[in-house]
Formats: sequence, structure tokens, C-alpha cells
Amino acid sequence: MTSNMYREIHEQPEVLATILEEEWETVAHAARTLRSRGFRFAMLAARGTSDNAALYAKYLFEIRLGVPVSLASPSTFTLYESEMNLENVLVIGISQSGESKDVLEVLRRSRQLGAITLSVTNDEGSSLAAAADVHLWLRAGNEKSVAATKTYTAELLLLYLLIAALEERSKSEPEVEQLPEKAKQVLEVAWEGVDRYRYAHYMTVASRGYNFATAKEAALKLMETTYTVTEAFSEADLRHGPMAMIGRDFPVVLIVPPGRAYQSMDSLAKGLTSRGAELAVIGEEPDLVAEAAAGFLVPVSCPEALSPILYALPAQLLAHSVAELRGLDPDSPRGLSKVTETW
Amino acid sequence: MTSNMYREIHEQPEVLATILEEEWETVAHAARTLRSRGFRFAMLAARGTSDNAALYAKYLFEIRLGVPVSLASPSTFTLYESEMNLENVLVIGISQSGESKDVLEVLRRSRQLGAITLSVTNDEGSSLAAAADVHLWLRAGNEKSVAATKTYTAELLLLYLLIAALEERSKSEPEVEQLPEKAKQVLEVAWEGVDRYRYAHYMTVASRGYNFATAKEAALKLMETTYTVTEAFSEADLRHGPMAMIGRDFPVVLIVPPGRAYQSMDSLAKGLTSRGAELAVIGEEPDLVAEAAAGFLVPVSCPEALSPILYALPAQLLAHSVAELRGLDPDSPRGLSKVTETW
Repeated sequence: MTSNMYREIHEQPEVLATILEEEWETVAHAARTLRSRGFRFAMLAARGTSDNAALYAKYLFEIRLGVPVSLASPSTFTLYESEMNLENVLVIGISQSGESKDVLEVLRRSRQLGAITLSVTNDEGSSLAAAADVHLWLRAGNEKSVAATKTYTAELLLLYLLIAALEERSKSEPEVEQLPEKAKQVLEVAWEGVDRYRYAHYMTVASRGYNFATAKEAALKLMETTYTVTEAFSEADLRHGPMAMIGRDFPVVLIVPPGRAYQSMDSLAKGLTSRGAELAVIGEEPDLVAEAAAGFLVPVSCPEALSPILYALPAQLLAHSVAELRGLDPDSPRGLSKVTETW
Repeated sequence: MTSNMYREIHEQPEVLATILEEEWETVAHAARTLRSRGFRFAMLAARGTSDNAALYAKYLFEIRLGVPVSLASPSTFTLYESEMNLENVLVIGISQSGESKDVLEVLRRSRQLGAITLSVTNDEGSSLAAAADVHLWLRAGNEKSVAATKTYTAELLLLYLLIAALEERSKSEPEVEQLPEKAKQVLEVAWEGVDRYRYAHYMTVASRGYNFATAKEAALKLMETTYTVTEAFSEADLRHGPMAMIGRDFPVVLIVPPGRAYQSMDSLAKGLTSRGAELAVIGEEPDLVAEAAAGFLVPVSCPEALSPILYALPAQLLAHSVAELRGLDPDSPRGLSKVTETW
């Protein structure tokens, strides 16, 4: 039987196309509202997969808009009742269900404290949608698998569009319009060498810059669906200590798209190989992928700032394949439910 | 032979006392300068252990000063050449050596982009000290072990004092003055049950709020000195997905001081136990510590906002003990050097 997770992974080209067709006007309108209110700083509140989408958005805000971003620690509001000065701060709450209690509390309190608030959810009728000044809808359709996939890439694209609109860019960047078709092409490729992870108890995932979010999301999917202890690092953070744990036979997944992070990732691949680590590579450089013990050759290219949308797909497929290999049901990770309530 | 790491762990009461005796005037003066320049946001740049100190400071800034904090992604500056608007932003660079190239670049660029800059280093003559508008000196003495210990707690205390000075609190909070003596008492206690980790390949550490930094630092020390794959989570983040990987016999370290985070940590301990996980607890609640498979009963109490300074000590001792148990040299983790150069 095909899992919901597998089906939802393959729905992503369609979800991306729907967002491009249906959401641009709403996004452009939201951007006009936010610009007219004015903001100097942004704070993003989310948990789990949505928090990885927030990490992607942090790079976009800081690099393309020049707006510094804080990733919210919800306990600051929920446990410690901070009275932050949030005038001229844009606070964005991201939640697939829109019912994450602590994210909701961050948004509510932020609004009282003077922030302009925006929510991104897959449910227009959710509490988070109602609590924000402006709401963006993911239009990803019902997500049945507990392990989120299509809502993740939907969040990435919607946040990309929001920032493009805030930059006053046009809707019709060809690289954006091509994403649904390119996502389809990525999904036609298969992983090589995944069987070797049948008995792996731990793994590390690394990337850099825009795709640090992809590394974190790959690790989260592997933890949720395969129960492998998986930690994600930026290439630089890995070198500041954790590198010591990596020796002979240690499985490391590298996410290596072309772009400004490429050189440091290529150098990391060499360094890890010389330590005896065993690599899995998601990338477009045929030699790098072929030399790795496992690999996913991405058959299309796009600007680095968009690559997390395409590179999320091989990461999801890796987790799904390893779960299948282990006879685990990726739709229902033990002890998790679709809406997690934390405070 | 006693390791440098062991010696430096035990130097911490003295280092804390030195900071309290010698640094208050400099800190108070720095705070006056920063206040007169004015700032609405803060951005903290650091790597490794210093980045965990930055995480602690994020909670202090947001909760006690009401100033939102961004933890910098250095690649935003080094790889992507962001032109962020940093007027009225305080940028703090934290580095034991003061020679971390990417942290230095963040500080230099931030200053050009309009920020007020502050550096915290253990070397007054370092590049980072010279690059900032204001410098704070850790006075921790030469740190020989690659695994940083005394510079970490020195960073925590100095950042605490800075924020107290920015709040215009007095130097003589008795809870602060008592820290060196309390640290000494903590170091007189020994871990129970650490032998069981001789062959552990992976571990998870969890805490919440102020002590999320302690969990991250415990994980980093375990990775660096024992090569155990160790990931740290906030209690809430653990529930949003990673929890699935935790089943029977999974080793989890919980950092559970009294305070506002206590209830959620106590509930997490129960939840983990019901999943069959095996706990190590660092805390003050005798029953909770006694029921755990391994435990460190902290013999003194302090306000939650200061507890990361005292709770770092058992975390360091755990890593040191497990390294010793495995015959590893904690002073020289394989493939690491004291100054790591990343860009």
C-alpha cells in the first residue's frame, strides 16, 4: 500500500503550481499592507517543520531585504511573560495546522506589544489565521501524514513570494514559474545506495546558508519516520566541535547545490572523506554524487535562493525510503500526532 | 595525569570571582556607552561554545530588557554579502580566542552598516577586541583544553552582568555575589551512574528556556570529548517530531532546575519514562534525581536566570567522566584545534 507520505511528496509539483496560480494577488496585497505599516525587524515563530521554513525565510529577509530576523523562543512569551518592545517589528507565525498553542500565544502577545502580525497556515479557519493582522494560506490540501512534506515546500514558496513582493519584484520571475515542472523532474529521479542505511543508528546532515534549512528538515524527517538519531549542522558549526565525533564509517548526508555555499561544502566533503566518513550527497555535480556511497543527482538547476524548495524533495524521499526499508509506517511515527500542543 | 579540562573545570569558581571583583566597572561603563548610543534590537554572532552563551543571552535580552535578539547566521555576511540595515542595532561578537574569522567579519561589516558593536573575548589583544566599539574581557586565564569550559561560564556571567547593568541594576545582587561559592559546592558533588554510558553511541539532552543553552552546551561537550552523537532539544521542540526516535533504552539527559521551566520538564521526564527511555537528571529535586538511572543532585539553589552558570558544571563533568571512561583525551579531540577558522 502506498503511504500518505509518499503520495503527498508526489503532490508537491501540483501544490507549488496552485500557489503560483492562486496566491500571488493575496501575497502582493499582504506585502503592500506590511510595507505601509513599516517594519525594521522581523521575528518568526514556528515549531518542527515550520520552524525549518522559518530558518529559510531568515536568510531571505536578511540577504534580500536587509531586515534582521529573530527566530522566536516561544517560552520567552509563554513561560517568562516577556514584555518585548515590538513596535516596527513584523512577527510571522507559521503552522501547518494553525493550532500550535505556543505559536498562537507568540502572535497574540506580539500584537498586544505593538507588532504587525502575519500568519501562514494550511487552514484558513484556524486560530492562528484569525489571530493575525494578515494571513497567507498554503493551499496544500489536507495533509494526512504526520510527517509534513507538501506543507513544508508550500511554506517555503509562499515565504519566497512574500519576500519577492516586499522587494517589489514581479510575479513572473521565470525561475519561480519553472519550479513546479522542475519539482516533477526531481521526483522522477531515484536514490542510489539507500539500502546501506537499514541498520544505521545515527546520521549527520550538513549544508550551509540557504540550505541549512534543508539539512534541518532532512534530519527532522529522518528522526520522525526512521527513528535514526540525526543531527543537522551548518558546515561551519560542524567544524566548531561536533566534527570530533565523525570518524571511520560515520554516515553523513551532504546537501550541495551550486551557489555561494558550494566551495565550503565541497571542501567539507573532502575533509569528511579523509576522516573516513561515508557520504550521501544530494547535488548537481555528477562526480561528487557518483563518488559518494549514496547519492541523488538533482537533474535540474535553479538559483541558490530557490534551491531549498527543490532540494527538500530528495531529503523527504531519503527518509521515506529508509522508513520503508525498516518496515516502519512513515504516516504514523510512534507517539506523535498531527497537531502537537506545547506551551 | 589530570587533564587540562579537569583543571579548568575546577578553576571556574575562581574565574567567576575574578570577574565579579575586576570587571563590574568596565561592564557598567560599557552599558552606559551602549545606552547613550541607543539600540532597539540585538544581534549576537558566535560559534560553538560561545554560540551557546549567545543563546543564553538571547533569553536575558528578550525577557529582562525587552529587546528582541537575532542569533546571526555569519554566512549572511561572509558568503551572501548582506547589506542589512543595522542602525540602532547592537551587534555582539563572542569568541574565546577573538580570532574566529567569520565572527570578526560579522562585527566589521555590522559596524560599517551602522550597528553599535561589542566584543567579548578572553584575549584583550585579539582582532575581535580591536574591531568593536566596546570590548569586554573574560579574565578566565589561558584555556589549554580544546574543549572550552571556564571561558563558557565566564561568558555567561559577563553577559548576565552586562544585561544587569543595562537594566541599571546594582552590582551587589546577593545571588550573583554567591555564585563563586555555590559553584565550588557544585564541584564537590559527583555524578552517580555514569559508567553505564561507556558504550553509548548516541544520547539526547533536553531542557527549556534559560537552560536550553545548558542542554546545547552539554551536547557539544559530549560530542567533542566523547564522540557520542548527541543532540540537544528544547522540551517543546523535542515533542514536535524528534520524540518519535526515543524508545526503550534511549539515553536522555535532562537539565531540570527549579523555576518556570520546571513543570514542563517534569512532565517530559514522565513522558520519556513511559516510552522506556533511560534518564540522567541534573537537578535539585531529590526524588527526580534519585529515580533516574544516572543523576547529579545540585546542592545549592539560585534564581533560574542564573542557573545556567551553575548547571553548566555538571554538564561539563559528565562529558569529562565519559571521556575518561573511554580512555579518550578530553584536551585534544581528534581533528580539532583551539582556534577554528571558518568563513
